[in-house]
Order: sequence, then C-alpha cells, then structure tokens
Amino acid sequence: MGSQIPIADWRTLAESKRSSVFAKIPKEWLLPSSQTARYTETSSLSVLDVPRTCGILTETELEITENYDATDLVNLMAEGKLKSVRVVTAFCKRAAVAQQCVSCLTEIMFDEAMARARECDEYLEREGKVLGPLHGLPISLKDSFNVKGVQATLGYTSFITNPPSATNSVLVDVLYSLGAVFYCKTNLPQTMMTADSHNNIFGRTLNPHNLSLTAGGSTGGEGALLAMKGSVMGVATDVAGSNRIPSICCGGSSFKPTAGRVPFAGGVAVGRLGTPSPIPVVIGPCGRSVRDHKLFMNSVIAAQPWLLDENTLHIPWRTLDAPPNKPLRFGLIRGCKQRPLHPPIARALHNTATQLKTHGHTIVPLDDGDKIPSIYSTALLAWKFFKLDPQKTPFKYIQASGEPPIPSLQTCTFSELKDWSATLDELWDMNVAKAKICHAYHSLMREERLDAIVLPGYQATAPRHDSFGVPIYTVLANLLNYPSGVLTVGRARRCEDREFAREGVGLEPPYEPEICEGLPTAVQVMGKNMMDEELMEILSVVEGLVGGRDGK
Amino acid sequence: MGSQIPIADWRTLAESKRSSVFAKIPKEWLLPSSQTARYTETSSLSVLDVPRTCGILTETELEITENYDATDLVNLMAEGKLKSVRVVTAFCKRAAVAQQCVSCLTEIMFDEAMARARECDEYLEREGKVLGPLHGLPISLKDSFNVKGVQATLGYTSFITNPPSATNSVLVDVLYSLGAVFYCKTNLPQTMMTADSHNNIFGRTLNPHNLSLTAGGSTGGEGALLAMKGSVMGVATDVAGSNRIPSICCGGSSFKPTAGRVPFAGGVAVGRLGTPSPIPVVIGPCGRSVRDHKLFMNSVIAAQPWLLDENTLHIPWRTLDAPPNKPLRFGLIRGCKQRPLHPPIARALHNTATQLKTHGHTIVPLDDGDKIPSIYSTALLAWKFFKLDPQKTPFKYIQASGEPPIPSLQTCTFSELKDWSATLDELWDMNVAKAKICHAYHSLMREERLDAIVLPGYQATAPRHDSFGVPIYTVLANLLNYPSGVLTVGRARRCEDREFAREGVGLEPPYEPEICEGLPTAVQVMGKNMMDEELMEILSVVEGLVGGRDGK
Repeated sequence: MGSQIPIADWRTLAESKRSSVFAKIPKEWLLPSSQTARYTETSSLSVLDVPRTCGILTETELEITENYDATDLVNLMAEGKLKSVRVVTAFCKRAAVAQQCVSCLTEIMFDEAMARARECDEYLEREGKVLGPLHGLPISLKDSFNVKGVQATLGYTSFITNPPSATNSVLVDVLYSLGAVFYCKTNLPQTMMTADSHNNIFGRTLNPHNLSLTAGGSTGGEGALLAMKGSVMGVATDVAGSNRIPSICCGGSSFKPTAGRVPFAGGVAVGRLGTPSPIPVVIGPCGRSVRDHKLFMNSVIAAQPWLLDENTLHIPWRTLDAPPNKPLRFGLIRGCKQRPLHPPIARALHNTATQLKTHGHTIVPLDDGDKIPSIYSTALLAWKFFKLDPQKTPFKYIQASGEPPIPSLQTCTFSELKDWSATLDELWDMNVAKAKICHAYHSLMREERLDAIVLPGYQATAPRHDSFGVPIYTVLANLLNYPSGVLTVGRARRCEDREFAREGVGLEPPYEPEICEGLPTAVQVMGKNMMDEELMEILSVVEGLVGGRDGK
Repeated sequence: MGSQIPIADWRTLAESKRSSVFAKIPKEWLLPSSQTARYTETSSLSVLDVPRTCGILTETELEITENYDATDLVNLMAEGKLKSVRVVTAFCKRAAVAQQCVSCLTEIMFDEAMARARECDEYLEREGKVLGPLHGLPISLKDSFNVKGVQATLGYTSFITNPPSATNSVLVDVLYSLGAVFYCKTNLPQTMMTADSHNNIFGRTLNPHNLSLTAGGSTGGEGALLAMKGSVMGVATDVAGSNRIPSICCGGSSFKPTAGRVPFAGGVAVGRLGTPSPIPVVIGPCGRSVRDHKLFMNSVIAAQPWLLDENTLHIPWRTLDAPPNKPLRFGLIRGCKQRPLHPPIARALHNTATQLKTHGHTIVPLDDGDKIPSIYSTALLAWKFFKLDPQKTPFKYIQASGEPPIPSLQTCTFSELKDWSATLDELWDMNVAKAKICHAYHSLMREERLDAIVLPGYQATAPRHDSFGVPIYTVLANLLNYPSGVLTVGRARRCEDREFAREGVGLEPPYEPEICEGLPTAVQVMGKNMMDEELMEILSVVEGLVGGRDGK
C-alpha cells in the first residue's frame, strides 16, 4: 500500500480526491460560497443551526433528523410509518450541509444509499417484514472501514492511488445484513493517533459549536456530523479514546465495548499489521442515546459475527433486567494531578455523583491516597505500546507522498518518550507493568464491590485546534480492556463552574471560560471487563439522571 | 526467585529436597527396596499391576481407585455411599506406590489431604449437603500450582531455597471452594519445555507401561500417576501440548480449553513474566472420562473465576444438548510429511474415522493438497514465540544452582532455530504469520462446515526417553487457541498395524513395533475457538464409539 508518489504531486492528488468527493454533493444541496467562506478553522462561529436555517431541508426532514434516536427511527420504519427513502434522504441532505460547514466527511455514497433505501422499502412492502433490526437505518462509518467499491484513504495522500476496497469490513457486512444503509464515511487524523481529525486530503474537521475548536479524534468526523444531526448512528474504532473523544468535544454519547465483542476484521490498517501491543483496537457505536448503543451491540452480536471473524468472541449478548433496580456502587475519580480538571468538567462530575447519590446509589471516591495506579503513568505506558513499531510505518505512509505531517502529531505525545524507542526486552517489562495495573483495578473493583467507575473522559471541554494533548483519561479503559461509555451531562456555564476553580492549579490546555461557555460537558463511565451488558444498563441509569438524551 | 547457590551444593540440595518428600510416605506404604531397585529408566518392565499385587491397598481401595471415574466418585460421596476419607486414603496409598515405581510426584500432602477429607465428611454429615460439586474428591496438581504452605520448585534446584507458597493459585482456591481435596503435586521437566518430565530434583518420570519409555510432558507426573490409577482427576497447564502429551504417552484423556476459560493466575512461572507471545498457556483437566472433564469445566466456571482472576473470561459454561443428535462433520488430518504417522497411530486415526462414518457422521479429509497451512511450519512459528525472551530466563534459573540442563532440552527444539534469536521487528511479522494461519483454519472450518477436526496428538506411541522431539500436532491447537481433547482409542497391535506401514517413509522417532506392542494409541479432536461446550459433547461422541472410557 502507498506506492511512491512524486513529491510535487501530492497537493494535486489530494485536491483532486477532495474535489471528486465534493462533486458527489447534489448542486441543490450546496450552500452559497459566500456563506461557506466564513466557515474556517479560525472562526468562532457556531454552525449548529445552519441545517435548520439554510433552507435545504424540508420541515419534515428537519424533524426526521432532529427528533428521534435510531431506535425510534427503526421502529417507525418497521411499523411502516416512515420510509427508509425519506429517512436516508433527510440524513444525506443534512450530512451534505454539515460537510460544507465542518469538513466532516471523506467518502460520499448518497446514490448507493438511496438505492439501498429503496431496496429496504420494497422488501418491507413485499415481504411484510424487516430486513433486520437496523432496517433502513442510515449509518455513518469512520473512513477506516472498507466498503466495497469505495476508497479508504485514511487521510494518507499516498493511499489515494490505492484501488477502491474490494471487500467490506466484516462489521460492514454484518450491519448490512441487519438492514443498515451506508451513506458516508467520516474524517479522521492522518495516522489516527491524535485528537485532531485533520489530514492533507480532506482538511480539518471543525467543531460545530465553535469552529475554532477541535471536533476531537480520531473519529472527529463522526463527532461533528452527529452534532450537526447529519447522522443518528456512527461507527468508530477506539484504541485510546478515538470513539469517545469526539462525543466529549461535540456532545452526544459513545460506547467502547470490551475487545472481541464487535468484529474488527477487514478494515484498513493505519499502521503496520502484527503489533504485539496488548492494547486492542475496538469498534463501538456513537450517537444519541444509550439505548441506541444497546441496539447496535445486541443486533451485531446476535448476527454471530464470530462466524466471520476468528478474533470475535463467541459470546452472546446477555439479557439483563433493565435498568438494574438495586442501588449501584460507583467509584469516582476526579482527575489526576498531572491533568487537573477544568471547572466545567469538575462540575459535571460533581453533579453526576450528586445526582447518583441523591437517587440512592453509592459513590466511593478512588482518588484519595494511592488507591489507584497513576492515571498519567498508565497513559504513558499505553503510549509506549503504541510506539512499538521499529519501522514507524505510519510515517512511511506519510513520507510516501511527500505530504507534511499534520501539526497535532507533535502535540499528542509524551515529552518523556521523545527519545524513547522500544526493545523486545523492555516489552516484557511493559507487559508486567500493564498486568499490575489491570490487577490493581480488578482488585479495587472487587474489594469495593464497584459496578462501575465514573471519571472524566477528558480534563476539559473541546479545546482549540491542535491543543488537545494526550487523552490520558480515555486510554485508561483501553489499557484495562474495560468497556466504557461517554455521556454529555450538561453545558459549561461560567457562573456555575466558577466554584469548581482551584487556585494555583496549572491547567493544560489553558482554561478559557469565555470560549467554552455553553459547550457540552461529558463524563466517562467505565464498567468491568466483559460486562458490557451491565455497563449498558448502568449508562442508562446515568443517562436517565443527568444525560439529557439527545434527539428526544 | 532463584537465589545464587554454590555450585558444589546443588546435588546436596536436590537430594535433601527429594528425601524430605520421600519421608512423607508412611513406612507401611513402602515397597521393598529390592523391588524398587528394578524400576529404572532402562528397564522395560510394566509396573501397571504393582498397586494390585503389592499388598499395600485393600481390595476395597483397589476397587475405589480402579472402578470409577471422578463423576462416579463424587456421586457416591454425595449420596453418602462412600466417605471422602476412604477415597482419599485409597488414592494416597496408590499415589505412594506409583511414586515408588515411576517417580511421578513432587510434593506429598497426604496428611493435609486426610484432614481435609475428614472435614468434607463431617460437613456432609452435619449439614446434609455437599461442599460443592467436587465434594471430597482427591485432585492431583502439576507442581507449578501454588498450594499454600507447600513448595513449588518446578524442578529447578535453584527454587528449593524459595519459601513455601504463601498463597494458593486462583484455580486451587476455586477447586477447594468446590470441595476438592489436594493430596499431591506431580513431576514435570526442568523448564517445562520438553516432553520428558525430568529434572535434577525429583528425577525422571517413567512410563508405567514400559519404564524405558517417556511418560510425556510437561505434565508427565500426572500422566504416569493417572495410568497407575493413583489419581482420578489431574490438573495441568498446556502451551504446546503439556496436558495432552502425557495422556498420549500413558493413556487416558485430557482436555485443553480455550484460553481464558479456566483461571490461570497465581501459579509459579517457569520463565520470565510478561511474554508478548500471542500463544497463551491454558489449564485443563486430565483423567479418565470426558464427562469428568465436563464436570471440571462446568464446576470451575460456575464458580465465577473471573471475580478472582482478571484474565479469566466472564462467560458461563453453556448448556447444550448432550450428545448432539445431528450427524457431525469432522475434518481429518492424517499427519504431515515432516512427521509421518507410525502405523499404530495411522490405524488409530483410520479406525476412529471409520467408526464415525459408520455411525452417520461425515469425514472431510483436510490433508489432500494445500487445504491447511503446513503443520510443521506452524509448530516452528510457535517455537519462535516460545523463544522470545532475550534474557533466556529459564536457563538463568538452571544456572543459578549450577545444575546441568536435562538431556531432552537438546531434543525438543527445531534445528532451524539453532542460531535464531528474536527481534521486535520480526515479532510483528510473526504475529502476521500467525494471524494468517488462524484465519486459514477459521475459513476452512466455516467453508467445510466442520464441527471439529480429528488429527494425531503425536505421530507415535510413547517413544524412548529423550526422543520425543517437538510436539508439532498438539501445539497447533495452542497457536490457534482452539479447544482440544486427547483420547485413548486403542492399543498398538503389530499384526493389525502392519497394513498401515508405508514403504520408504522415514519415521521420527524410530518405529519399534516390538517396543510399542500394547501401548495406548491416541487421537486428538480439536474444536472451535470458544466452543469448548460443543467440543466436549463431540468428544463424548468419539469416546462413546472408540474411546473405551477408563475406570468403568
């Protein structure tokens, strides 16, 4: 992959690829260029209301895209109250508008989607039953999924000369078999190892709340598209927080399952295959509601994906009482000293814990004393695992076209690892260090009889472009291989956040109250390994108390 | 671990350890030294009848140890028809006799076992119910398990100076909670990486069928003890065949589950912790019947071991229809060209396949053409993973006492790897190569709709000491992480085996028909990843047709 391209040509190649995708947006869905010229990465505009004000979507289309979650939509379609063609049209239009505001898409598959939607509608009419539990539902995919006949460049200019995908990712096959409709792929960072979804082909995805802020990454295209309500269910990979950070930055919620529960096979690798890293990449859903995540997990696993992917665990999705009627026990982590919480996030956590307590649940603070291993050191260890490749393959993929690395690659790393390179000998010790951390959390959860841990997903609301830094709070769940969900639980409000400010504490990135006013604030809820089912119900409880589910 | 010991002292240390264990055998259970003097590694005697002829066991004790499997025994004890004290006494006596014939034990815990057996009996009498599904059952353990208060030297002389274990292995805790009685630990090879259970502390375990043959390894102590009927259920580790090879060499059956189903935590490591090898060590049962393996798996998993060991998968043991009443589809592998089958094993496989076909099952030959990746190359790749440690820790443990390496360490390796040492860079490629092999088998099983694969466990019956070589057929299931069982399906019979001889085929180790006459012949049945439950029922089918369950 990534054949050598004359350096002078990379810009031409990227521009041509970008234009060919843009050309797939129907003319009548285009915003005036005078308007889009204002949507730049230095503008602090919010574009959240553009779909509603631009006149491109009908009132019904606005309703379809705004008023429901995926569970509602599949129910309405299954009952024949809504045609897939109408739903898909609405989301295609809205995604097209979103793309023009925040550069959230890579591949556009509107024509294919409309054909598939018609197929769904005809099937239902003819057979009197749905294709599956996701019948007719438009689903957006991170660019790294393979969809037959469509490219997967991953934002590497050198990948533009690769032929379109010859096969689907296993999950794409599974979702298709369940009735899904694919209509777009979404933007991500060059190398996928930063929280700024920025590359030299598709540009930089902007945060719809404030274009001068990051949309997060590596699935920032999904995050921005979901916030624009140009998608109701997205699918993303996550090895350090990639599926959760965009929800943290743009609002909404996402779910990272335990590894092996959702089939991973058949995607495009962003780096070298065969890593000995013990931190697996996983795939999970992002969207508007916890029940949609459950719909996704339940449906995918019911399709027996282990028959198609040997690395998927042969385990059914267990049915539990939903929601659990016993009081729950939550551990609470209120940050770590190397990355203290910004006031809005401290308040979000405080409010969440308070609401849980008020409703009879127990909160066990875990950040007093040395109950938990250092979150910062744990993330540093994870980063070593991510830097194992002696061949530095992602950089080879960059160099192959002559394109420059994106700026945030410099910021999403530990200064401690500047001169570090892996050895096989140290890898053994790293594995031992990791095992100790996993054991410590496991023992803690057992001894404290915890059902889940509430912790920050990030220390701040969406920061400015290229200033996110290292996602120490999300990568924790990856290293532990614990399922984890992220929920929007409120908004930054300067006047209320103020009392959570702590004097003399240095914050990174800087806290700018005027910038973050009104931005979504998120918490992370981490469950226990393989207990995705239990975590899902716990997330429902948290969502019910503080989540303010979107789309309803 | 393994503090430096003056070289001159290792013999004294080993002798003293050996004597201290031997001293735990009650005087009245000792065989005359004139008799035991004949039980040497160069003798071709069978000692299988010694327990019955030595006069140490009563007729009832002979019956208890010979006539039942573990399922029978726990049922009889639960019904109050048999006391644990009587069962445990009988097995302690028989294990003591076995030890004097074939050197199968390391640690002796007869006193502790008797106390525990009394506790079981008193509990049942007092409470009117059993402690658990393994109530009162004596279970033998490979030396690498930690049992509180008992040493775990693993046959390293340098480990003799370690204090006794301070805690139990997680599985030992689990089995204890289920009612088990521990009465002995069993012998294994220095480094555990050969099929000759031989070390400088406890000597060499001999094959009860013919003392000049290997008992197999690395769990040879279990294999020999089980063949002497000095145990009814043993527990062993397996990373290349360690739990299956002794059953192949000595008779009986064993089960290697999918990794993560039986808790592995808390044992003593034979080498360095933190290996990046993707081939996990697993623990499984060995003994007399498939239903005993099921009893073990079902009971252990019902105890929710994931609460105690974070690396155990949170998955229940699924209940299936037993046995499956549909015809099964079996793949058949009749060896590979680098290690062709000896006539008795070729006949064993042929008979097994024929019986299965006769009873309506389908046999799909997999060894024609290139349907499967080379078994030899697959084993070679596995061996590279086993040789990853740049510090060669097992050899450090040997050198720490000045003891010599055992001879078979030279024989259980690939000449291709003589000068090979691992690099981090190659490890990536090795992982890719492994993934391709896993994918090939997974695709094959799917395309051919196979329920299981019947293949050799080894190319021969038990060979002479130090000539087993590399276990290419068993390590396949470890690399694939497929569950696998081994069953004795007959005996070598020169006159019947003859027709399976192939002219001009070089056999390794050499085929000596007169030596192997009457030895058990085994087949291996490999199931699908995570489908341990299905494999167990399939093994029952094979056992029912050709297995001739022992103990009934």
